[in-house]
Amino acid sequence: MAAADADEKYELITRRLQEVLGGESIKAILNEGRSPKCYWGTAPTGRPHIGYFVALTKIADFLRAGVEVKILLADVHAFLDNLKAPLDLVAHRTKYYKFLLLAVFQSLGIPTSKLTFVEGSSYQLTRDYNLDSYRLSAIVTEHDAKKAGAEVVKQVESPLLSGLLYPGLQALDEQYLGVDFQFGGVDQRKIFTFAELYLPRLGYAKRAHLMNTMVPGLSGGKMSASDPNSKIDFLDTPSTIRKKIKSAFCEEGNVADNGVLSFVQAVLIPISQLRLERLQGKTGVDSEEGQNATGEQTPFTVEGAPEGSVFSIFRKEDYGGSLHYKTYDDLKNDFAEKKVHPKDLKTAVAEAIVKLLEPIQKAFEESEEWKTIEQLAYPDPNAKPEKKKKKEKVYHPPPPGKGKNAKAGEGEDGGEVVEAAVEVAKSEGS
Amino acid sequence: MAAADADEKYELITRRLQEVLGGESIKAILNEGRSPKCYWGTAPTGRPHIGYFVALTKIADFLRAGVEVKILLADVHAFLDNLKAPLDLVAHRTKYYKFLLLAVFQSLGIPTSKLTFVEGSSYQLTRDYNLDSYRLSAIVTEHDAKKAGAEVVKQVESPLLSGLLYPGLQALDEQYLGVDFQFGGVDQRKIFTFAELYLPRLGYAKRAHLMNTMVPGLSGGKMSASDPNSKIDFLDTPSTIRKKIKSAFCEEGNVADNGVLSFVQAVLIPISQLRLERLQGKTGVDSEEGQNATGEQTPFTVEGAPEGSVFSIFRKEDYGGSLHYKTYDDLKNDFAEKKVHPKDLKTAVAEAIVKLLEPIQKAFEESEEWKTIEQLAYPDPNAKPEKKKKKEKVYHPPPPGKGKNAKAGEGEDGGEVVEAAVEVAKSEGS
Repeated sequence: MAAADADEKYELITRRLQEVLGGESIKAILNEGRSPKCYWGTAPTGRPHIGYFVALTKIADFLRAGVEVKILLADVHAFLDNLKAPLDLVAHRTKYYKFLLLAVFQSLGIPTSKLTFVEGSSYQLTRDYNLDSYRLSAIVTEHDAKKAGAEVVKQVESPLLSGLLYPGLQALDEQYLGVDFQFGGVDQRKIFTFAELYLPRLGYAKRAHLMNTMVPGLSGGKMSASDPNSKIDFLDTPSTIRKKIKSAFCEEGNVADNGVLSFVQAVLIPISQLRLERLQGKTGVDSEEGQNATGEQTPFTVEGAPEGSVFSIFRKEDYGGSLHYKTYDDLKNDFAEKKVHPKDLKTAVAEAIVKLLEPIQKAFEESEEWKTIEQLAYPDPNAKPEKKKKKEKVYHPPPPGKGKNAKAGEGEDGGEVVEAAVEVAKSEGS
Repeated sequence: MAAADADEKYELITRRLQEVLGGESIKAILNEGRSPKCYWGTAPTGRPHIGYFVALTKIADFLRAGVEVKILLADVHAFLDNLKAPLDLVAHRTKYYKFLLLAVFQSLGIPTSKLTFVEGSSYQLTRDYNLDSYRLSAIVTEHDAKKAGAEVVKQVESPLLSGLLYPGLQALDEQYLGVDFQFGGVDQRKIFTFAELYLPRLGYAKRAHLMNTMVPGLSGGKMSASDPNSKIDFLDTPSTIRKKIKSAFCEEGNVADNGVLSFVQAVLIPISQLRLERLQGKTGVDSEEGQNATGEQTPFTVEGAPEGSVFSIFRKEDYGGSLHYKTYDDLKNDFAEKKVHPKDLKTAVAEAIVKLLEPIQKAFEESEEWKTIEQLAYPDPNAKPEKKKKKEKVYHPPPPGKGKNAKAGEGEDGGEVVEAAVEVAKSEGS
C-alpha cells in the first residue's frame, strides 16, 4: 500500500468505526492528494490505563494513512476537572502522558512523524480563543449546551457551569487546532454534532467527526481510572496483570457484557491485523513502517496457528488443543456457544497484554527522565517521612460547591478521596 | 471639609444609597488614612441617556471623598451584547462614553484626578483572567449563576450561556480592577452577593458593595435606551428636551410612579446640594473643587428662593407665585397633596435639565475629536448616499439562536431591528 490511493486511505481511516459524520470532506481532501488533519483529545488526569489502547489502535490507522494527528493534552481541562491538582502537577502529568502515548506508538512501530502533541494551555487561554468562547456563549442556549454534554458530563443534581462550557470549548478546539476532523468515542456524538452546528455560526468550517465504538471496562461498564478492577495500568507487572484479568467479569457464554472479549475485539485483534498486514508488505504510506517497532511484530497467536490467524487460545491437547481465530466473530461465536471457557480466554488475553506492555515498560525503565516525571506526576501516596506511623486516612475537603453531589470513592491517586463532579468532556480510551 | 475626617468621608460615600454591604471594610480603610478604591461598570452600547446622571451624581460623592474611582467600560460585554456591532464600532462607542462621562464631571466641577477609565478588553481576555473564569465555572453551579443574574439578565425562554457567565465575570472584575468596593444599582444586589460568596472561594478578598436606588424612567419603569420616550439624550436640544419632558408620565398627585419626580430626587436635588455645599465652603477633599466647573454653580432655584433651597418651581404670581424647596420630601408632599401641578413641575425639570446639559453640549461642540467620534460611534441611519430613495427597512437577521426569543423593536441605532436577548449584567444609569 506504499502508493496507497485515496480510496485505500479512506478505508484505513474509517475502518472499524461505529460512525462517520462528514466523510465526504475527508474523501475530498484525499482526492486532492492532501493529508487530512485530525485531533483527539484527552485530559491528563489520573494514570492512563490500557483502555487507551482502544483509541490509540484507531489513531495508528490514521497515522498509517498519512493523517496529521494532533493529540490534545487538555491540561486546562485536567486542572479544572480536579481543582485540587495544582497546575504544576498537571504539567507533570501532561509530560507523563506524552512519554506514554509516544512509547505505545513506538512499540507498535507506528510512524510518528505526523504526530504532534498540543497542550490546551498553549492556546485555550489566548485572547482570540477566549473572545470566541464568549461569542459562543452569546449564541449558545443553556438547553443546547446541556443537551450536548448529556452523555459526557456527569449528570449531577447541581450541575456546574463548566459542564455547560465544555461542548463549546471542544468545538473551538477544532478551529484552533486547524483540523479537518475530530476523533472520539461515540459517547461524544452530541458534542460533535453541537460543534457541527455552532462552528459555522461563528464563521468557521464544519468539521467531520469519526467515532469509535464504546468498549466496556474489564469489570463491565465504561473503563474508568476510579475503578481499580476495571483498570490495568501500563506499568502493571505481569503478575498484577494476570491477577486483574483473572478477577475480571467474564461469564461463560455471555458475549453481550464482556469486557475481556471486547478488549480482544477493539485492541488485540486490530493490533494482530496490523502486524499481519506488515508481514504481507502492507505498510501504510510509510514504507519503513514497523521497522523500528520496539515490540514483537507477530500476531497474538500460538504455535500451530494457520496463516491469517489473529488470535489464539492456548489449550493443552487433553482439553482439545489450542484454538485459532481469523476473525473476532469466530471467537465470539465460539464463546457464545461455550466452546471457549472463560478461564482459557482470560489466560490468552492476560498473556497478550503482558506481551503488549513489555516494550512500553522497557522504554519506561530505560528512560531516567520518564521515571522522574512518573514520580512527580503520581507521587506514591504511601511514601512516608522518617517515622513509621499507623496509616492515617487524610480527608481532603472537596472544592466549594463540588462535594455535595460528587460520587465518593477512594481515588487511585491516594490523596483524592472525592471524585470531581464534572467529568471532562474528553473521551478516555474511547 | 478640606481636612475631612474618616467619618465625614464615610458619610459622603454612603449618603443617599439604598444599601451598603460590607461598609466596615471601607471604614477601616478610611480610618487608616487610605483612599478606598471602587469600580462602576457600564457597557458602551447605545447612546447614553441622562439616566446616567443617577450613577454619576453618586460617583461625584465618591470622588469628592477621595475615592479612587475606576469606570469600567465593558467593551467585551458590549460586543457580546450585540454581536452585530463589530469590535471597531464598540471601540468608537467606548471613546464616546469616555468623552461624555468626563464632560459630565467637568461640568459639575468634580475633581477627576482620581478617576480612571478601564476598558474591559484590557484585561478580560488575558490568560490569568480566563483561567480564573474557568476556575469559577468549575465551582459555580448553574443554579447559583442563574439566581445571581435573575434581575439583571433578561429572562427569556431559551436563556443563553452568556447570561450564566456574566455574574462570575463581574465578580472577577472586582479582583482584576483591584478595588475595595463595587458600586451599582440595587438591581445588581444578587450579582453582588454572588461575588461576595465566590471570590473568597478562589482565594480572593470579599469586596464591599454600595447600591443606589433604582430610578424609574421618565415614562415610568427603568430608563432604557430602547424606549425613546423615557430617554433624553445628552445632546438633545432644549426644545427636544422640553418636548420629551412634556410627554413624560407625571400624574397629578401620584408620587409613587413618577419618573419626573424621581429624577428631581436622584439627580437635580443632589446636584443642587453639591453646589450649595460648595457655596458654604464644603469642597470635599479637594479644596479646588468646583473652581473649574464648566457649568453654572448655583442650585436649581429661581429668584426669591430662601437660603438653603435646592429646587424651585416657577409660577406666576397669579397662580400663587413660585415654590421653593429645601428637601425632596417637602416637594413630594406638596405634589402628593396636589399643591404642585404636573405642568409646573415639568417646566421646572425641563429647564433644570437644559441648564445641566448646556456645558456638556458646549464641550461637545468645541471638541472636533469628540464630534468625529460621535459620527463613528452612532452613524446617522438616515445618512443616504447620492440618490434619494424611498426609505427601505433593512432586515438584519438576528445572530443564530438569538432571534427567536429576542424582543423585537426598532432600535435607536437605526440598523438594529432586534434587541439582544441578553442584557449585559451592568447597570445603566442606576
